[in-house]
Amino acid sequence: MNKVTREALFNQLRAWMLEAGALIRNKINNPRTIDTKSNPNDLVTEMDREVEAFFADKLNRYFSDHLLLGEEGYGSSTFDKNKTIWILDPIDGTMNFVHQKQNFAISLGVYDQGLGEIGFIYDVMNNNLYSAMRDGGAFKNDQKLARLDENKQLKESIICLNHRWLMENNYIDYKVGQRLVRDTRGTRTYGSAALEFAYVAEGALDAYISMRLEPWDIAAGRIIVQEAGGITTNIEGEEIGILERTSILTCNPNLHDTLINDYFKEIKKVT
Amino acid sequence: MNKVTREALFNQLRAWMLEAGALIRNKINNPRTIDTKSNPNDLVTEMDREVEAFFADKLNRYFSDHLLLGEEGYGSSTFDKNKTIWILDPIDGTMNFVHQKQNFAISLGVYDQGLGEIGFIYDVMNNNLYSAMRDGGAFKNDQKLARLDENKQLKESIICLNHRWLMENNYIDYKVGQRLVRDTRGTRTYGSAALEFAYVAEGALDAYISMRLEPWDIAAGRIIVQEAGGITTNIEGEEIGILERTSILTCNPNLHDTLINDYFKEIKKVT
Repeated sequence: MNKVTREALFNQLRAWMLEAGALIRNKINNPRTIDTKSNPNDLVTEMDREVEAFFADKLNRYFSDHLLLGEEGYGSSTFDKNKTIWILDPIDGTMNFVHQKQNFAISLGVYDQGLGEIGFIYDVMNNNLYSAMRDGGAFKNDQKLARLDENKQLKESIICLNHRWLMENNYIDYKVGQRLVRDTRGTRTYGSAALEFAYVAEGALDAYISMRLEPWDIAAGRIIVQEAGGITTNIEGEEIGILERTSILTCNPNLHDTLINDYFKEIKKVT
Repeated sequence: MNKVTREALFNQLRAWMLEAGALIRNKINNPRTIDTKSNPNDLVTEMDREVEAFFADKLNRYFSDHLLLGEEGYGSSTFDKNKTIWILDPIDGTMNFVHQKQNFAISLGVYDQGLGEIGFIYDVMNNNLYSAMRDGGAFKNDQKLARLDENKQLKESIICLNHRWLMENNYIDYKVGQRLVRDTRGTRTYGSAALEFAYVAEGALDAYISMRLEPWDIAAGRIIVQEAGGITTNIEGEEIGILERTSILTCNPNLHDTLINDYFKEIKKVT
């Protein structure tokens, strides 16, 4: 995708991201919506579908040669990686949406011929839009994010991981997770993979680790992190395909080798 | 303290909370401040002192019969619990302040003759002020918080706890923490005790557990949680003195008995 095409698509998608976010905010802030839903799970299901249908409609009308991969399955059924693919999570952080009515995001990544071109992560309730274009840097709203500090040391780092990786589980040896927690300055858990990618991009977290994410959890985040100077691979340190369900390590560039070599290299999968 | 006195003090302190928050925001958002501090730790130290000195000065000038207990030690050296005491954490969530420049709070609780009268927790960067007066309900900005759901079940709950309580540590048997994580819907870690109290009050978290907090981490939060219908004790289920360093369980009212009886009752202190 050339620069002119990329910028035009970026500007169009940016407007639609904000529009989709406003749609969610209006529903959440309208007492009538809340009253008519017997159950907050109904609201998130409705919003998930509505946001995905919104983007599917835009794609069909204005970019009908593009493909859509979405969590809700409104998109294409087969994927030709040589085409332009929109990868969408209409609401990332479902549990936060249901319990907190905040701390969730719309996540949209655009790939062309397998290459990450455009990423958006929209923290809807705080009205913060993280974005990036290939070779264009990463942004939080209109502010360009600083390149991640290349001297960051693990012992001064804040890492993000689920509590369950510190207990017996089907994915990793919990002792590795525990040793990592001991060796860092602090740990956080926010409950939205997309936002956790965004926090790595802005340096609020120095690493985010997950054992199992879907393509739509990752698609936007890895582009934004890359444009901020960070690195995203699976926990074996390998590059990730764009349609893969996979483990994730996304982090400050100075931590990647250490995390792979001193921690995850020795992971023995439990199953 | 009677209602008229309480309301007058509340209104005065509310204005000062907002003023102190603006002071911090201005420093953080001013590029010149950031440039002149070689080290973000210097900035948090300076802001901690400045905010505490701000409140100490107000107290000395306008409420000279009150006492101040603050993390930085600008306040009184002895405490007569029969007097009116302001308990202040000028910046709660120091690591978040340093690493994220957000997700920290000013926390101020006022006690009179041992009774919690007024609590403020100010999420400075998001400009959210949580507050409560005894018997007056809890608020987030101008909106009264709903009473916490009295039918909440543990298996549908989100709990907040540090990752370290799931590993060998000097405070609790980590197996209890691990069992609790398995039995709940989700877990979070935000890194500011005051904000974690506020999130319990607004129902974004259903419980927050910590093994070791200082009086200024707790003072405002327990009043705000109580006014939202929640319960705060130590993890043995006992009431907490206002000047104690202690463990904390603050939670939805329907979870308290379960958490104490089915989990923490059996804690064997490791040391």
